[in-house]
Amino acid sequence: MKPAVCLLSGGLDSATCLAIARSEGFDCHALTLDYGQRHHVEMIAAVKVASSFGAKHLVVPINLRLFGGSALTSNIDVPKSGPADGIPVTYVPARNTVFLSLALAWAEVLGSADIFIGVNAIDYSGYPDCRPEFIAAFEQMANLATKAGVEGRTRVKIHTPLIRLSKSEIIKLGSKLGVDFRLTHSCYDPDGEGRACGLCDSCRLRLKGFVEAGFEDPLEYPK
Amino acid sequence: MKPAVCLLSGGLDSATCLAIARSEGFDCHALTLDYGQRHHVEMIAAVKVASSFGAKHLVVPINLRLFGGSALTSNIDVPKSGPADGIPVTYVPARNTVFLSLALAWAEVLGSADIFIGVNAIDYSGYPDCRPEFIAAFEQMANLATKAGVEGRTRVKIHTPLIRLSKSEIIKLGSKLGVDFRLTHSCYDPDGEGRACGLCDSCRLRLKGFVEAGFEDPLEYPK
Repeated sequence: MKPAVCLLSGGLDSATCLAIARSEGFDCHALTLDYGQRHHVEMIAAVKVASSFGAKHLVVPINLRLFGGSALTSNIDVPKSGPADGIPVTYVPARNTVFLSLALAWAEVLGSADIFIGVNAIDYSGYPDCRPEFIAAFEQMANLATKAGVEGRTRVKIHTPLIRLSKSEIIKLGSKLGVDFRLTHSCYDPDGEGRACGLCDSCRLRLKGFVEAGFEDPLEYPK
Repeated sequence: MKPAVCLLSGGLDSATCLAIARSEGFDCHALTLDYGQRHHVEMIAAVKVASSFGAKHLVVPINLRLFGGSALTSNIDVPKSGPADGIPVTYVPARNTVFLSLALAWAEVLGSADIFIGVNAIDYSGYPDCRPEFIAAFEQMANLATKAGVEGRTRVKIHTPLIRLSKSEIIKLGSKLGVDFRLTHSCYDPDGEGRACGLCDSCRLRLKGFVEAGFEDPLEYPK
């Protein structure tokens, strides 16, 4: 089995992405970044999801709170009134660049040329680093950044199997591949017990996706 | 003054690079990554260098020892017998990709479009992520990764003022711009007191550079 590094946040997209990598026969090495996110409870979700698939799992601390600049990493409020125009304040500057770079580092050590990331450019929050053109540029850079690039041995591939799927399609696919959505966490602003708010953009996208898929979201939301 | 993020390891290249950014009129924000390097003493050098230039300075921990795969981040011995063929074992997988990604994150929060990195492709150890083609690809990716890229506002520029200079030219330039080389640290494998070994590739490149520049290296080496 070829090794692959799979970025895993603990949300339903990355859980489904991990399930896809596994179904394609990769030996999955899940990588979770503990980046000082407001919804730190997603770390627990990531551990449970990785474990449910028997994947190797590494949680790497990288405190993006030192830079701030996002509602997820500073004291800016998470919007609750539904999607607005433009890039939302929950955007974390260069987050996917940092995450993919760390995935690339681990992949190179493992001798892996395959990195999976659950970015999505359909039912998403409009973040610049979820777009296909960003992923293509990262892949091109990655192939010059590493030993393999110099030696022309292998070509690093950034797999984005969800990028053109709607949230409901992701949920249906994840369900088919055995994702236990009870273990996942999507909310940007959970309460002290880790319960989802039901109102942030991420909760709204998730809830809409479950409705459209005709499934019930197993998570508990405020009445 | 325009803000710039300047990667600062504590070595003489990055110290000179910071001095150049300053001489070009940038408001320098020095960024040092505490990545679990064997030569952890370079952290102290970085703090002293940043302070000597009155630069703002952030030290961010990112433990690349969790991945390993390099003589600088695992228990592989640092070679002491002089440069060998190929990419040396001191290469840290994807290190400059990770460092530039974090610099990009901070730059975006600061509203800066200028990142300085002291990579060099002349008197260097043959690392893939010091080559001009890597830097160009990173710059292209960076311009798709961030808010500014979506909005087409600014173009991120990765400045590499040392990339075509020899080590002796870097030393002469640094000296002219007021770098205090006593504060810098280059050795990959210092002793318990932080003293340079004089034998690793990095010490050899430094010593040769000082000889060629006609200057005396102010650091202490074993007799």
